[in-house]
This record gives sequence, structure tokens and C-alpha cells, in this order.
Amino acid sequence: MKTKDWKRRKENDRMMKMQKGAYMQGIDKMILKEIPVPKAEGKQVLVKIEYVGICGSDVHYFHHGCCGAYKVDLSEDFMLGHECAGTVVEVGKEVTDLKVGDRVALEPGITCGKCEFCKSGHYNLCPDVVFLATPPVQGCYEQYIAFPEDMCFKLPENMSTLEGCLIEPLSVGFYAANQGEVQTGDTVVILGAGCIGLVTLLACKAHGAGQMIVVDLVDARLEKAKELGATAVINSKEKDVFQEVERLTGGRGGDVVFETAGSAVTIAQTPFLVRRGGTITLVGISAQEEINYNFAQIMDKEASIKSVFRYRNIYPKAISAVASGAIDVKSIVTHEFDLEHIQEAFDEAVNNKTDLVKAVIKVE
Amino acid sequence: MKTKDWKRRKENDRMMKMQKGAYMQGIDKMILKEIPVPKAEGKQVLVKIEYVGICGSDVHYFHHGCCGAYKVDLSEDFMLGHECAGTVVEVGKEVTDLKVGDRVALEPGITCGKCEFCKSGHYNLCPDVVFLATPPVQGCYEQYIAFPEDMCFKLPENMSTLEGCLIEPLSVGFYAANQGEVQTGDTVVILGAGCIGLVTLLACKAHGAGQMIVVDLVDARLEKAKELGATAVINSKEKDVFQEVERLTGGRGGDVVFETAGSAVTIAQTPFLVRRGGTITLVGISAQEEINYNFAQIMDKEASIKSVFRYRNIYPKAISAVASGAIDVKSIVTHEFDLEHIQEAFDEAVNNKTDLVKAVIKVE
Amino acid sequence: MKTKDWKRRKENDRMMKMQKGAYMQGIDKMILKEIPVPKAEGKQVLVKIEYVGICGSDVHYFHHGCCGAYKVDLSEDFMLGHECAGTVVEVGKEVTDLKVGDRVALEPGITCGKCEFCKSGHYNLCPDVVFLATPPVQGCYEQYIAFPEDMCFKLPENMSTLEGCLIEPLSVGFYAANQGEVQTGDTVVILGAGCIGLVTLLACKAHGAGQMIVVDLVDARLEKAKELGATAVINSKEKDVFQEVERLTGGRGGDVVFETAGSAVTIAQTPFLVRRGGTITLVGISAQEEINYNFAQIMDKEASIKSVFRYRNIYPKAISAVASGAIDVKSIVTHEFDLEHIQEAFDEAVNNKTDLVKAVIKVE
Amino acid sequence: MKTKDWKRRKENDRMMKMQKGAYMQGIDKMILKEIPVPKAEGKQVLVKIEYVGICGSDVHYFHHGCCGAYKVDLSEDFMLGHECAGTVVEVGKEVTDLKVGDRVALEPGITCGKCEFCKSGHYNLCPDVVFLATPPVQGCYEQYIAFPEDMCFKLPENMSTLEGCLIEPLSVGFYAANQGEVQTGDTVVILGAGCIGLVTLLACKAHGAGQMIVVDLVDARLEKAKELGATAVINSKEKDVFQEVERLTGGRGGDVVFETAGSAVTIAQTPFLVRRGGTITLVGISAQEEINYNFAQIMDKEASIKSVFRYRNIYPKAISAVASGAIDVKSIVTHEFDLEHIQEAFDEAVNNKTDLVKAVIKVE
Repeated sequence: MKTKDWKRRKENDRMMKMQKGAYMQGIDKMILKEIPVPKAEGKQVLVKIEYVGICGSDVHYFHHGCCGAYKVDLSEDFMLGHECAGTVVEVGKEVTDLKVGDRVALEPGITCGKCEFCKSGHYNLCPDVVFLATPPVQGCYEQYIAFPEDMCFKLPENMSTLEGCLIEPLSVGFYAANQGEVQTGDTVVILGAGCIGLVTLLACKAHGAGQMIVVDLVDARLEKAKELGATAVINSKEKDVFQEVERLTGGRGGDVVFETAGSAVTIAQTPFLVRRGGTITLVGISAQEEINYNFAQIMDKEASIKSVFRYRNIYPKAISAVASGAIDVKSIVTHEFDLEHIQEAFDEAVNNKTDLVKAVIKVE
Repeated sequence: MKTKDWKRRKENDRMMKMQKGAYMQGIDKMILKEIPVPKAEGKQVLVKIEYVGICGSDVHYFHHGCCGAYKVDLSEDFMLGHECAGTVVEVGKEVTDLKVGDRVALEPGITCGKCEFCKSGHYNLCPDVVFLATPPVQGCYEQYIAFPEDMCFKLPENMSTLEGCLIEPLSVGFYAANQGEVQTGDTVVILGAGCIGLVTLLACKAHGAGQMIVVDLVDARLEKAKELGATAVINSKEKDVFQEVERLTGGRGGDVVFETAGSAVTIAQTPFLVRRGGTITLVGISAQEEINYNFAQIMDKEASIKSVFRYRNIYPKAISAVASGAIDVKSIVTHEFDLEHIQEAFDEAVNNKTDLVKAVIKVE
Repeated sequence: MKTKDWKRRKENDRMMKMQKGAYMQGIDKMILKEIPVPKAEGKQVLVKIEYVGICGSDVHYFHHGCCGAYKVDLSEDFMLGHECAGTVVEVGKEVTDLKVGDRVALEPGITCGKCEFCKSGHYNLCPDVVFLATPPVQGCYEQYIAFPEDMCFKLPENMSTLEGCLIEPLSVGFYAANQGEVQTGDTVVILGAGCIGLVTLLACKAHGAGQMIVVDLVDARLEKAKELGATAVINSKEKDVFQEVERLTGGRGGDVVFETAGSAVTIAQTPFLVRRGGTITLVGISAQEEINYNFAQIMDKEASIKSVFRYRNIYPKAISAVASGAIDVKSIVTHEFDLEHIQEAFDEAVNNKTDLVKAVIKVE
Repeated sequence: MKTKDWKRRKENDRMMKMQKGAYMQGIDKMILKEIPVPKAEGKQVLVKIEYVGICGSDVHYFHHGCCGAYKVDLSEDFMLGHECAGTVVEVGKEVTDLKVGDRVALEPGITCGKCEFCKSGHYNLCPDVVFLATPPVQGCYEQYIAFPEDMCFKLPENMSTLEGCLIEPLSVGFYAANQGEVQTGDTVVILGAGCIGLVTLLACKAHGAGQMIVVDLVDARLEKAKELGATAVINSKEKDVFQEVERLTGGRGGDVVFETAGSAVTIAQTPFLVRRGGTITLVGISAQEEINYNFAQIMDKEASIKSVFRYRNIYPKAISAVASGAIDVKSIVTHEFDLEHIQEAFDEAVNNKTDLVKAVIKVE
């Protein structure tokens, strides 16, 4: 489905029953509106949303009106939100596996299934993806969403929908660990202890990483990293990162180095932190397109560089890892708000750069 | 080094200082002898042994005089034992990294470093390997051993030499999980809950497996499996394995199925337990060379079959995973004896088929 | 006449346009029928078929009424054929990439795009696949077929539609080489020199295999293998396969051993022909479900066994390899018939077990 | 063996019989000296050298006195040369596989076999490597060399020692194709058509690449590329590389992009030439350590970057591929000199930047 059609259909779908939806109305402002509840058609299910996370990209759209190349059309209200979970309340006629009452986590990117990327399993690279809260596609800060069954992943008994909505950010870290091919017993270095750095840490731990060294500038975040399993943390304001990593790894460097901060400074550090033959995995997106990078180090070490664009084929595995206890994903949540207080939630997300790791919206 | 030279050299090395060594003297009999303490020459270190595990192969040699194609020459005393750890007490002149006082785990197979297998990292397939306690190469039920530095892996502060001697059996399970390419969140089925089944379980857990289903005939072993992290256990005497695995996996089967029991019955079960596109990993060695196997299932599911011959490149990773707490390897030990009581230890290992999972010899 | 009316009239015309289609009418009998030409709807294109290959499975259905678990309902006429290529003569309204006049090869299995197998790129394992000429899905021995655009792969200028129809069988061999992970310079052993054995050979050659040893019972086929690039052939009636492979590989065995004959005898040979650490790839489907197999050899050599179910993501690569000259696929064709003589073609395919390698039907 | 010992031993080895050896005596000057013929000790064989190639690094040492971080001690004569092949004329006592009369290609880097890199098959990263013609290790512009048996790879009947000496440079290209994971049917873009660019091209062709696009500034080199199998060439002085690659690949970019020119300009081009999800492989070493690189493109395309440091485990495969005809390596040779004219050969190599692709020294 093309983006335009998707948008139009979503509008049309909303007919009789009414629900609340939160929209950004220009920069830094959230409003609640009454909108129709859609119907589950064909292969769709209607999900009563219980939790929606606030992603860094949501905050960026809210505060700057854009994120990377994507821009919100500020002449219209725009609904953010793409990390959600809830309960199936209605199923379309062609739905075969899910049933009313199932609790599900939604994977927010609907892909074409036909291009070379989709067919080869690299669907995250599908050029025709329709991704929630990526303009002009509306998001899910609302009470009900109609969504394709195959993008709704059933949660097991022992998992909450709070955990369900966190599968989305977790998937980024999980996929980063996969792309970096983290092996059990590996030493990993994670640059950045924001939400993505921390889910990368959780995923590395679940992959069985041995030494897990996390670097950031903010002590509160590093404390959180320790709590989540980091075996060592480095505040790069206070200590020399290169010396510390060298000391902690016995001069060897990291098997896998993750860059999650998205800053030119940390990206440029990676060749010096990875071991000979090791892998650098770029997760954070830098505002700066070009970066001065030491390829001599890369060549001399025969290091590899991998990158991460969203994720693919992660939901079932991530849900399974959370259900088995291998990943305690809910521990990343530091703030919870209800939908009525979404303005407050976003204000906090914009302003609190220290101890806010992850905020979620509870939808009644 | 050729097997013969190795043996001869070991004899020669034993010159002045004396130590105790345990030898099998014919079937089912252990004796202690006074033998010389070797010297650490060239790139060797002299290790004061603290713990030696009892492996199933040791028990097989002790009780049957052979293991697979290898036979003990019963006309001579033969020293068993290949799972050991201890403390470096002397270093050869060419030793560069280890020093006196370092605690180390010994990887017992010394390979040529020159053949196509060694060069390509598949050294476990080296045809010229010299492996401790594999006739005619003597083992390590003794107080001191001189061993190449590069085969002695330093244990971190927080690891005991008891854990160190368990790195060897753990490596088999760890390598099995690697060969099976267990991914975080995968569902695994492990046939057999003996020592190898349980270290495979520990390794799968460290690799982040989600559902871990263990099958055996003995309840005591299944209890141990549960204690070590199995999410479900099946006593195949009491329940239909196929139905149970189908039920537990929602009709899907295991992503990876490990056969560790080495019985024709369980090997033949594997095609029916693996999911479409999944992987069977054969770890247990069957006494029966040929097995009637349903390849129609394999083809229809496009399943893969991998096998495991010892292990390679595992020690550093396994030590790291134990040190980080990802693997609690010492929990597999059910019995401990001192070197003086090695006869008792082996008798118990031969006779106790239920609650003995892993016995170790403490060497003073 | 108004455009609208013109269009409507054209629609009407099209309803009446008729084409010829060949159907099996019970065992061993082919008839031609007049059937309507379909319309290209939505994302479909209408392809004027120029060549359709005769596959071993087509012959099996024709002569036995079944193939593996699939049975033809003999109470109705059934159209066989799934290896085809032709020219686009009409495009549906939602078609975006193909245009009238494009010559295309059709990939005959339409998959759901939604299941875990499709999403992860393993679409050949999709349980909901619709595959041409697999009962009850009709095949393509006809003049026109309407088919989804994304399953029609454009042929470059320098490729004929004869080559196009051969992409399907080639894909099986190509995928086998991929599954076996044939590396440039590898020694491969191919058991069976029928069509699948020969396309495997072509694919191995294109993958850069060094020594390519082909084994069969029929000299004519072995001659063909030599012509297509085999560096050595063995007639297993005349020579001991094990000794010959040992001699030819300097006692080492094959890096990759392909079983394409689908016989219990050759499947059972594979563990003895593969090198230590090598890979066996099962391509041929045996009528016998269970096979007595020497797993002791597999374990001792740490060999892997891979299997092949159809193919996935091969068409673009196979077309590219044929276009570049890396694969001379048309050289496997030994017999050509036109659609009027399809009975003769199938009779020949049933009876000629020696020099018929590949027969194709030319459709005018 | 440590570098020092190696050097000393080589000196000692040279005792009675005398041979000619070519040395650089300061910048740009070659002399011939009478030196002793070494003896084959232990596991060594004595090889009568027949051909030695001139590598870009040899020319760099000759003309600049250094290459990368390595510097020739200009106070002493230094022997260059590391690409050689010849005939075994004497074997050490512990030699098991080679015999007098065998023709062999020498892999010039002797590694420790003990470090984590050697054990895991990544021996090219061994920190203790002793590599011919890498100061202070002397090279092989001489008539005889004693070398470890396991580094001498036997050539099959149908391969000449001229081809044998070319296995070394070919290995770089071959390894680059492996690191880039070139698949049969892939589209590759090769930046640079010097010797390394051309062996990369040969390797890609042997790996079954479909479209092979080569870019350079010199028409003579591009002509050579065409002759060796390039399907398209681009002179980047005359045409816009980005537009041309876009045109030739239908807007898709290369599956694998190789940078072999080692210039900051071409390295910086790579993110724009690779397809979404594709791989960039860095082979050429830039004099400039840091390069301004567009990581935004890399992230957006989820491209990977691999690098190449020498090669590993390539000789047997490369020899096999040359022997089977998959690679016509001798076609890269444009100039041949005998040892007496080595000064001329190096002068030509320094000065002829257009049609000299590969020069070899024939040793009588």
C-alpha cells in the first residue's frame, strides 16, 4: 500500500465509534481530539492500545518538526507514536491466527512483500515501507488501531503490554547485536547510554556477552547501565576512553563496538576501540553527514563496519527472550504518563536529559 | 609433536622432584604411583593441578578399556584425565604471557598448527592432535603437568580452579550451541540430560535461548535440567516426546534440536522434532555406526544437520561467559573426591546412573 | 468512438479470445483444449508463453499420477508445466515496472509474504505457497498466462526465452550450490548426472569450483557432464566410487558432495565421499523415506548435511550469471518439441532414460 | 619464530654453496651479490626459485625506502621480493609431504600458530608474522630459499611456476572477493585497475559475478580490465562515475564495491556506489590516514564495510581455481625480466604508470 492510500484509508476507516487521539499541533504542542475508531477489515485486527512508548524520533518531530529527512507538515495536526501494545478487540474476516482477547505487540513498519529486499528477508530496506509516525503516515497515540494481523505479535501469558510496547525499541538493540554478530563470551563496548545504548546493552547481555563496557557523559545514565548489566562504565568527561578500554580489555579492544550516540566524536572513536579483526556497529544517526574517519586503523586491524536501519525479523525472538527472562526490558522505563498528560510527558522528554531513559504513555 | 614423541618426552621430563599420579591398572582398577615432576621447558609452563574432572570417556576407558576407536594398552598402566585446572608454579624460558601464580584452565588437545584444518581455524579436525588421556597419550590425574603456554588459559580473579576444570566439558556444549547457531530467543530441544546435555543447556541459556526443552528417561536428571534453566522437561518414558514438543512449541518444533544421548533411538527422533528450516546438531556419539534415518522429513523441512567433534576456539569465550555470570558452570558438579579416593570416584561414576551428573577430583 | 466505449469493446473482445492449453487426461495421455485467455488484473501481467520446460516432476505426474505427496485428481483434466518464459503482452493497472514487450522468466511459486518464512527470506518454506503444476494448482502448458509482476523476471537483451524457461531448473542447482556454500576453488562431487545433477554442475562451475567430479551409471549422461565442465567423471557401474574419489582428491574427499540422484544407495554413500569438515547437500528426493545412514562417519568427520527444497531468491542472480556468460544453460537442452507434439514429448521423456537430459516445449 | 631469529638464521643457513641474490642498496639502486645457498633444515624445503613477481610494495620500498609503517634500514643492503615459485631441490629431515622435484608456490607470511588469530583461522592478523621483504625480514630475489614445507603449496601438472608466483597477488584479490562475499550473479564495481584491481576482477569473475564494472583514470588499464572480463569500464576523467554506475545498474548500485586504488577520493565515493544493503570492501591502502566519509549514506542504505589485510587460507583454493581454468592469472603479466636485469625491471616499474600492470623476474 502506498503511503498516500494508507493515510486516506486510515481517515476513511474512522467512522462511527469515537476514541481519543493525541496530535502534535505545531512545534512543542500536543492536543487530544475525538476521532473515529477504525474497523478491522480483511486481514486486520482492531487493537485496543494499552501502552505507547515515546521514542527519540517522536521527541524530535515534536520539538523540531522533523527527524532526519522526514518532515511533519505543520499545517495539519499529526499523530506521533509507533511503539505500542494492546489487546485485540475485533478481527477482520480473513484473520486466521489471532483472536479477540489476545494481547499483542505491534511491529510498526508495513512492507510490500514483493521487492528484492522483502523477498530476501531484508524487509527493513523495503523502499515502499509504511511506518507509523513517519510523515505522512500517522502514528498510534490513540485508543484503537486497526493493523495487519501479521504485524501483531502475540504476547505470552507472562508478558505485560507494558513490556509489549518496549519490544519496538528493544528490537533496535537486538538487531544491532545481531548485525554486530555478538557471540557468547564477547567483549562489547557501547558508546552512549541513552535508550538505544541501553537496549543494545540488554540485547548484548541476552546474547551472552562477557565484558560489557558502556561509555557516556552522564553519570545517571551510566548508573542505569550498571543496573542493567554493564560490567564496567566510563564517563568520558572524566576519563580517557581509549586508555580505559585498553586497560579493561588487556590491550585488546572490543570484539564488537556499538556506536549509539550518533555523534561525530564517538563515531570517530570507533576504529581505536575495536580489536584486530573486530566489528564496529553503527546504530546512532549523526546529524552530520560526513565524518572524518581513520580508515588507516580500520585497514590495519582488518575491522568490519556494520550498520543498522531499524530492524527485521526480531519481534518473535525478542518476545521470546523477554518471556524467558533473558531480557528484563521493563527496567529501562523511568517515566510513565497517561494519555491525558501527553503534553507533560513530551515536555519532560524534551527537557530531562539526565535521568529520563524511557517514558511510556499508558492509554486507558 | 607426534604422539610417540610426546609420550617419550613426558617420561623423560620426569626427573627429580616426585609427585603422585593415578593410573588405571587394567579394567576397573586405579592405583597411585610416585612419578617425577616434569620441568617446564621452552614455551611450557608447569601447572600445579587443583581439580580434574571425570569425563564419560574416562569412565569408558576405565570400565571397558576403550572409547570409540581408541584402546588402552592394558599391559601398561595408563593415566586418564583431561579436564583440569590449577596454578602456574614454573615457566619455561620462552614463555611470554603467563607467570608464576596465574591460575589456568588447560585445553587438552595440542594440534600441529600447520595443516589445512589448523590454519583455517578448524583445529579440532587436525589429524595430528595430541589429546590428553587419549591412548597412547597419558592424561592428567596427577599433581603437576608441564603444558604449552598457549593451551593454558588464564582464569580471571573471580573464577575458581574448580570452575576452571569444568571449562573443558562446558566447551563441548558451548561449541554445540555455536555449531547449531543458536540465536537469542530461539527454541531449543535437547535430547539427553547427562553431563553433555546439561552443559549444552547451560550454553544455550548463555546464548539467550528462549524456550529450552530437555528430554531424558531419568527424573533426577530432568530435575537438574530444570534447576539449570530448562523451561520444560519431558520424561520420554512417561510422555510422547513428539506430542509434547509439538504442544510446547505450538506445532512449530525446535529451531535447534541437540542430540546428546548418542542413542540410535534419539538420533532417529530428530527429524520429527526440528522446525521447517531448523537445525539438528549431533553431539552424542552412538555405539551403532549406521542408523535408519528419515531423510524424507529432512528434505521436506529443508532441515540442516550439523555435528560436533570436540570443540575449537571456545576456551576464552567460555571463561568470559562464566566470569560474567552468564553461565553457572559449577552447578553441574554433584560429586567431589580427592585424588586418594580416585578408585571410589570411578566406581561411583560407573555405578551411579541417576544422580551423578559430574564428579571432580580435587588434587592437593 | 469515445475512449470509454473503445475500452469497453476491447474488454469484450478479450473475453472471447481463446488459446490452446495442454492437459493430462488420465495417466500417460495429453490433450489440447481451447481455453480462454485470462486478463492481467491489478499487479498481474499477461505473458505470451514461448517456451516451457518438461520437469522430472511433470513426467512423474504424467506417468504415475503423483509426485511425492501430491496427487493429480484424475477425474479432471490437469495442466502440467511450471518452467516457462515469454513476452509481456498486457499489463494490469497496478503494474509499475514491467511493460508490454518485455521478455520474462516466470518464478512459479507464489508465496504469502506474511509468514515467518516469507519475512525472513526463506519463502521456499512458506506453507501457503501456490506453485504451478502442483495439484490442485494448474500449470502453464498454454499460450498465455496472467501472473504477478513480481514473479516475472525481465530477461536482458542477450538472453533468449529458451534460456529464460531454463532458469527454473537452473535455480535448483544454483540454490544447491548456495546451500552447499561452494567456494571458488572447492572440490565438488556430484552424484547423479540427470538434469538436476547437470544444473548443479553448471552452478558449481559458475561458483568457481575447481575439481568437479560427476558420478552416474549412464555413459551418455557422463559425456554430457564432461561437455558441461566436469573435470572428471566416474561410471559407478564400472569403477569403485570411493576409490576413484579418493584417488582424484588425493585422499581428501570432496569439500561439498551433492546427492542429486535421490536413490538410497547414493545417499548412503555421501558420508564416505565428503572431506573432514565438509558439507553434504541433499538435492534428490528419494522414494524411500528412511535410509540406513552412517552417522559415525559424519560425527568423526564433523561433516554437515544441508538440504534443498526448491529455491529462493535465485532468479535475478541466475539470470545475471547466464547473461554474463558464466553459465551456458541452454547447453543442457537435448530435445525440443512444439506444443502440438506434447504427447510425443512426454512419451519420449518417459521412455528415453539415456540421452534425454532436458526437453522443452516451444509454444507458438 | 621472532623476526630477529629469522634473520639471523637465514644468515647462518647460508654456508657453502653460493647463489646470486639481488639487493636494494639505498634508494632506486639494485645490486647482485654472491650469497650462500641455505640448507633445508627440519621441516623446511629448499626451493630453486624460478619466478618472482614485483609487487607495488617492493617498488615502494625501492623508490621511497618505506611502505606504510615499515622502513628499510638503508645502512644495509636489503633483499626485496615475496611473490615466488620454484622447484623443490632438497627436503629437511622432518618434511613429510613434499619431495624433490615438486613445483611449489610460496606463501610468504610465516605465522606463530599459537595466538588467538592463528588458532581461529585469522592468521593474517597474527602479530608475530614473519613476512618476506617486510623489513627487517629479507625477501626472495635470489636463486634458492629454504622455507617451511607447510608454506609451500604444490602446483598441479598443468600450472607453470610463472602462474605459481602470481598466486600471491591473486590471493589479495581472491581474499577481497571472499571478504566482500561476492555471490554468483552479483554486480560488482571495482575502483582502480592497477594490479590489485585486476586480480580482484579475476577473482570476482571466478566467483561468478555477473556485471563487473571497473573504474580507473588510465585507458590502457581499462583496456586490460576489459580483456580480463570487465563487462563495463568507466574512465572517471571522462565520465561521471556515479551517473554511469547508476545507468549501468538500473539505479541500483553495486552489490559489492571494491576500493583498490587507495586514494581518499575513491574511498569517499564508495557509499554512493553501493546498493542498499550492499558491501563495500576496502583493499587499497591510502597514504592519508583520515578520510571525510559520508556515513549518512552508509546508515541510510544499511551498507557494510569490510577491509582486507593481506589474505588467509587462499593458496589452495586459488591454485585450484587457476588449475581448473576458472582464473587465467598469467594474463595480468605485461613485463618479464631476468634477474640480471632487475635494476631495469624496477626502473620500469617506477616509471611506467600506464601499461605496466605486472612485471615478473625470471630467475635462472
